[in-house]
Amino acid sequence: LVAHTLTISCADRRGIVAAVTTLLFNSGGNILEAQQFDDQASKHFFMRVVFELENDARDISMFQSAFEPLASQYGMKWNVRSNEDRRRVMLLVSKFDHCLGDLLYRHRIGELPMEIVGIISNHPKEALKLNLIGDIAYHHLPVSKDTKPQQEAAIRELIEASNTDLVVLARYMQVLSTEMCGYLSGFKGAGPYQQAHDRGVKVIGATAHFVTADLDEGPIICQDIEHVTHADTAQDFVRKGRDIERRVLARAVHYYLDDRILMNGDKTVIFNS
Amino acid sequence: LVAHTLTISCADRRGIVAAVTTLLFNSGGNILEAQQFDDQASKHFFMRVVFELENDARDISMFQSAFEPLASQYGMKWNVRSNEDRRRVMLLVSKFDHCLGDLLYRHRIGELPMEIVGIISNHPKEALKLNLIGDIAYHHLPVSKDTKPQQEAAIRELIEASNTDLVVLARYMQVLSTEMCGYLSGFKGAGPYQQAHDRGVKVIGATAHFVTADLDEGPIICQDIEHVTHADTAQDFVRKGRDIERRVLARAVHYYLDDRILMNGDKTVIFNS
Amino acid sequence: LVAHTLTISCADRRGIVAAVTTLLFNSGGNILEAQQFDDQASKHFFMRVVFELENDARDISMFQSAFEPLASQYGMKWNVRSNEDRRRVMLLVSKFDHCLGDLLYRHRIGELPMEIVGIISNHPKEALKLNLIGDIAYHHLPVSKDTKPQQEAAIRELIEASNTDLVVLARYMQVLSTEMCGYLSGFKGAGPYQQAHDRGVKVIGATAHFVTADLDEGPIICQDIEHVTHADTAQDFVRKGRDIERRVLARAVHYYLDDRILMNGDKTVIFNS
Amino acid sequence: LVAHTLTISCADRRGIVAAVTTLLFNSGGNILEAQQFDDQASKHFFMRVVFELENDARDISMFQSAFEPLASQYGMKWNVRSNEDRRRVMLLVSKFDHCLGDLLYRHRIGELPMEIVGIISNHPKEALKLNLIGDIAYHHLPVSKDTKPQQEAAIRELIEASNTDLVVLARYMQVLSTEMCGYLSGFKGAGPYQQAHDRGVKVIGATAHFVTADLDEGPIICQDIEHVTHADTAQDFVRKGRDIERRVLARAVHYYLDDRILMNGDKTVIFNS
Repeated sequence: LVAHTLTISCADRRGIVAAVTTLLFNSGGNILEAQQFDDQASKHFFMRVVFELENDARDISMFQSAFEPLASQYGMKWNVRSNEDRRRVMLLVSKFDHCLGDLLYRHRIGELPMEIVGIISNHPKEALKLNLIGDIAYHHLPVSKDTKPQQEAAIRELIEASNTDLVVLARYMQVLSTEMCGYLSGFKGAGPYQQAHDRGVKVIGATAHFVTADLDEGPIICQDIEHVTHADTAQDFVRKGRDIERRVLARAVHYYLDDRILMNGDKTVIFNS
Repeated sequence: LVAHTLTISCADRRGIVAAVTTLLFNSGGNILEAQQFDDQASKHFFMRVVFELENDARDISMFQSAFEPLASQYGMKWNVRSNEDRRRVMLLVSKFDHCLGDLLYRHRIGELPMEIVGIISNHPKEALKLNLIGDIAYHHLPVSKDTKPQQEAAIRELIEASNTDLVVLARYMQVLSTEMCGYLSGFKGAGPYQQAHDRGVKVIGATAHFVTADLDEGPIICQDIEHVTHADTAQDFVRKGRDIERRVLARAVHYYLDDRILMNGDKTVIFNS
Repeated sequence: LVAHTLTISCADRRGIVAAVTTLLFNSGGNILEAQQFDDQASKHFFMRVVFELENDARDISMFQSAFEPLASQYGMKWNVRSNEDRRRVMLLVSKFDHCLGDLLYRHRIGELPMEIVGIISNHPKEALKLNLIGDIAYHHLPVSKDTKPQQEAAIRELIEASNTDLVVLARYMQVLSTEMCGYLSGFKGAGPYQQAHDRGVKVIGATAHFVTADLDEGPIICQDIEHVTHADTAQDFVRKGRDIERRVLARAVHYYLDDRILMNGDKTVIFNS
Repeated sequence: LVAHTLTISCADRRGIVAAVTTLLFNSGGNILEAQQFDDQASKHFFMRVVFELENDARDISMFQSAFEPLASQYGMKWNVRSNEDRRRVMLLVSKFDHCLGDLLYRHRIGELPMEIVGIISNHPKEALKLNLIGDIAYHHLPVSKDTKPQQEAAIRELIEASNTDLVVLARYMQVLSTEMCGYLSGFKGAGPYQQAHDRGVKVIGATAHFVTADLDEGPIICQDIEHVTHADTAQDFVRKGRDIERRVLARAVHYYLDDRILMNGDKTVIFNS
């Protein structure tokens, strides 16, 4: 059976859950999974419901029609998506390809149910250390200081033409222009280890977050760390960092593909199992 | 406002969430937190709802009366409890008191909202390394091979007389008789480190679980680990173990007091925030 | 048998280890544990050796006399200490006493082999949530904006009069004056969770470090983290933070008492087993 | 400059470190890294030294000749190896190739300095989900119950013909015969998650260890874990398990290639930075 995922966010009001679940029941829905969160600070309500419908194809449009008035009444931001509608994902990569390689492998073994619409890089395909790319479209868009606006326009065009849902910056090290960032709804795994080493830290971490104009300040999706010691060189920091980065980025993509990420202002609600 | 926590488990059926939340809404309830889980394997449904009622005192009995028929209809095991009704907890301790001390401190600073009805030990109060006990009733019940049945009967009497909800084996190292175990609904933090050291493990862990006749085999509540190295002596294992044990046991008690633990056969469902 | 711990740091040169270990051998020493580190960046050498001597009392002064010329030759900063000479530790605490309570308990069960020379607080003993203090000297030194210089002078006097080796800021929340900081050779477990929560982080951490005039910037000794979620309130951050803080601070004190911390500029070398 | 790694193990005696480091000094050696461990239980001594020589090529044989009598005197098991002599590694893989893919990628980006002499599998190359294999020799050796002895003989032949130092069972799921195991000096990343799920554990782990006739009981090299919840299906356990397995196996291989693993009876000493 096909499953559908419904995500909702709105100002908190009494009776929302009852209204939503009753409508689902009356539409022939069977709830498989449901999570909700009331942010006591912002007085906002967040919900994620995975459900099956008895007579699938017909019911989902019926359900959508039936849900529309309820959504209006509560002022909901909402979305419903069949797990058969795969998200269309564009991967941006630069010189360091460990995150890209990891995403491609996980995709290949079925861990990340997405449609990879293409790979964009400022380096040629031959510069990469991997060859899991197969017949995925590879767009080599070199960039210099002078050609940056044109290159970003070309990236944007590819994203639009491919009907991309999500852009993943799998360690795309070029700083994107403010304008470009506003446009993207992707994320990136960060990692400046030089200063961390100079500072003598005992823990290093990576963060996957949405991209905003201020590159390192978008809403955080997930974070993880590794312990380091005085004996780890800056190069060891980089090596350990690679492991955290690809783990954290893969988890973030996984959450996105599963509709587990809801926005709560400049924070995220992650409905993690 | 007073909050109530409702926990439910029953065979999975379509419409449960709608029925429960609609009844809550009609009873003047405002949901603050809700979690649910459908075990696809056992086809069982689990739910935890924290809610406020508009006119508290009267409504909770009204709510209970209204909920009873619904519970019957779905064959639910259910429980509703006000967060003002503190759980009554009996602590059992033996020679090692790091878990006891930790629970007492967390209780004292308000982290664990429970009523400690007493402490039972086979050692005298003076043998303990701590003195956070204050005016909590302390029952010294020495035990020998011969007096075990009598001592266990005395423990049982204390538990019953004190209306205890939960018995926590805070490292009570005496092996309890099968009969006794069947009676207890407590848990314990385990930790045999001797063999782990001989085996040369690189990770040690502790488990908090419910106690069954087979002491180490009750449903697991939580687990955690620490890394160890070849340079750690068996004594270091014990020292690191103490830290994991008290952390894991405190977490388990915390879950219990918050009604976050539901039983799923011989496994647990933990509705952790 | 008594064990001695020798710590050394100096500019790196060929033959240091041979010279040190040969001298130890000729002095009747038996090495129990030895660690060394060559910082390739700063070209500095660090070493920690734990050893026994055949004829203890006499040999240690003989060893010291014999070591002096070697130390001069290589320009070493060095120290040798018997494990029977317990470090004298002064504990500073303010309102939050979870770190203090934890250190006192670990001390009591023999985990931290130190001499606690006293506790200094700007709050009276009765304000604390614990009573493991026993007959440890407790100095209540209240402070206001106006009396800060006098209070700090009083603290300094207590530290000097008690021959203190180490001052531990067990969450002493008063900001120390620059002058005072220069004087202290203690550390503190940090923890500002308010902003972390507003920022929506998924990981919180604590750091134990030496104190410098810039309170949060001294050389780092150890760090650890806990994962948090959107459902954790600022208060949950504080609760989880307490656990990390006391764990991290206890570990840092443990390293210090074991002579495992060597300074490498504004970084630390931690010879952890 | 070329670096050499010397590893030593022998019964503990006074003066070993002095003897070894003095000989190194007299041979023109400059120590870059040194670690040692005295097992108080087994009274065995373990040491690892990384050093440079002033006049490389000639000195290493001179050093070896000079070291031989010392090694005899102390009854040492010892080995010295230049970091330019890459270990020759044979990879065995079956259906699940996440560990293999991870090792190949890390090798390709220079993280694992080894010579991969070949890949052996009971499945054809086309069955694998990756294609980082490039021109590495791939040996497809199908196996059935009847042909097991012949297949193992063929594996053994390949290992011998290729002068293999290390055989890595990168999730080679075939149970090896006792005879075969005795022969191998490889390791494997384990992972049976079915029972763990049925048992309701809250933590899953993977172990990389040397292979003995009793497949899961060889000396442990490293271990790590991930937290799981009631909501994780057996399939999620497998997915999370893959991540731990490849992380743990890569770390173990890394330790091996760096001569960081010394055997201490049926335990390991891991000289980890």
